[in-house]
Amino acid sequence: MKQSVHHFTISTRGKGLYEFTRTLSEWVRDQKIHTGLLTIFCRHTSASLLVQENADPTVQGDILSYFDRLAPDDGPYEHNYEGLDDMPAHLKTALTQVQLSIPVIDGGLVLGTWQGVYLFEHRVRPHRREIVLHLLGE
Amino acid sequence: MKQSVHHFTISTRGKGLYEFTRTLSEWVRDQKIHTGLLTIFCRHTSASLLVQENADPTVQGDILSYFDRLAPDDGPYEHNYEGLDDMPAHLKTALTQVQLSIPVIDGGLVLGTWQGVYLFEHRVRPHRREIVLHLLGE
Amino acid sequence: MKQSVHHFTISTRGKGLYEFTRTLSEWVRDQKIHTGLLTIFCRHTSASLLVQENADPTVQGDILSYFDRLAPDDGPYEHNYEGLDDMPAHLKTALTQVQLSIPVIDGGLVLGTWQGVYLFEHRVRPHRREIVLHLLGE
Repeated sequence: MKQSVHHFTISTRGKGLYEFTRTLSEWVRDQKIHTGLLTIFCRHTSASLLVQENADPTVQGDILSYFDRLAPDDGPYEHNYEGLDDMPAHLKTALTQVQLSIPVIDGGLVLGTWQGVYLFEHRVRPHRREIVLHLLGE
Repeated sequence: MKQSVHHFTISTRGKGLYEFTRTLSEWVRDQKIHTGLLTIFCRHTSASLLVQENADPTVQGDILSYFDRLAPDDGPYEHNYEGLDDMPAHLKTALTQVQLSIPVIDGGLVLGTWQGVYLFEHRVRPHRREIVLHLLGE
Repeated sequence: MKQSVHHFTISTRGKGLYEFTRTLSEWVRDQKIHTGLLTIFCRHTSASLLVQENADPTVQGDILSYFDRLAPDDGPYEHNYEGLDDMPAHLKTALTQVQLSIPVIDGGLVLGTWQGVYLFEHRVRPHRREIVLHLLGE
């Protein structure tokens, strides 16, 4: 049984879904682990992780506008140090998650056909988001 | 330290919560692992996993109607290839999760007394949902 | 490769965010594991786990009032055996999560600078909430 860890960053340019499924698949493949568990951890409180459909881009547009309605920028928030998108970003992170684990079988992630892994950026201004990967297996 | 993996499907007949706690418990018991970590992964973007109260069925009815209000079928969505319940299914999946890990201690899952594990089906038509289990421990 | 497990309780006094990041960090440090994976599991259906900003207390106030708006105590619920905060507590748990895994690197949790780990209590009356920790690594 062995472990591998990896740090990388994703540069974001405003609210949106940034897919990084291929980065994950390639890194896992390079670790030469047949069976194991990959854990993805996002080190932020205003960006999160999402598994969603990777086929039709209108799904991603609908997800963005839905979360903007669910936690609107003009809500009755006290916390707004960093602008109107500050507190909604925390709320959207709370409603999704910062950690995701995916089993690895036969050397690959067991994602479904339509599942892509996305960084869900909730802030308007550009950010560099830090992701940590941990893989355990053999 | 050893690993076990397992694939199975859950047949669904419309929106609802389908409990499969016993399937998990029995499979874990059969693996003869004393201490470890079970990971459950749902390979879909329109069905998800939920840990909820297994005692009173009105809780499950309230959860279903609440999520239908939170992401209504008649919302202003662009994506509707597969009907009115298509995009709300993606949103409900985003608001819950497709992965769940549960520690195993003394050969059993550490679920609380009232916790059951459910597949949360968000689509109206029948589906066969694929679940992957990964267990690591000794 | 070794495993450690730990049980503890958090006493809550009404709805709120109860940080326990330090409890986690200290326990992990004491296990003398350099690289691994910590899993935190909350054994309840009316309290959950949240990773959120630990710097500005107004964030926590905004999170509480937001979730009270999103799943209000006076919503149209059938299940209310234990009072008006009963069903909203289940819904808030469904919208967040009861499990969180965090990689351990160089003997410490890879939490970001602003990330704290909280128990999110959704009930009004005092409770003792049971948390299980599972650590795997070497």
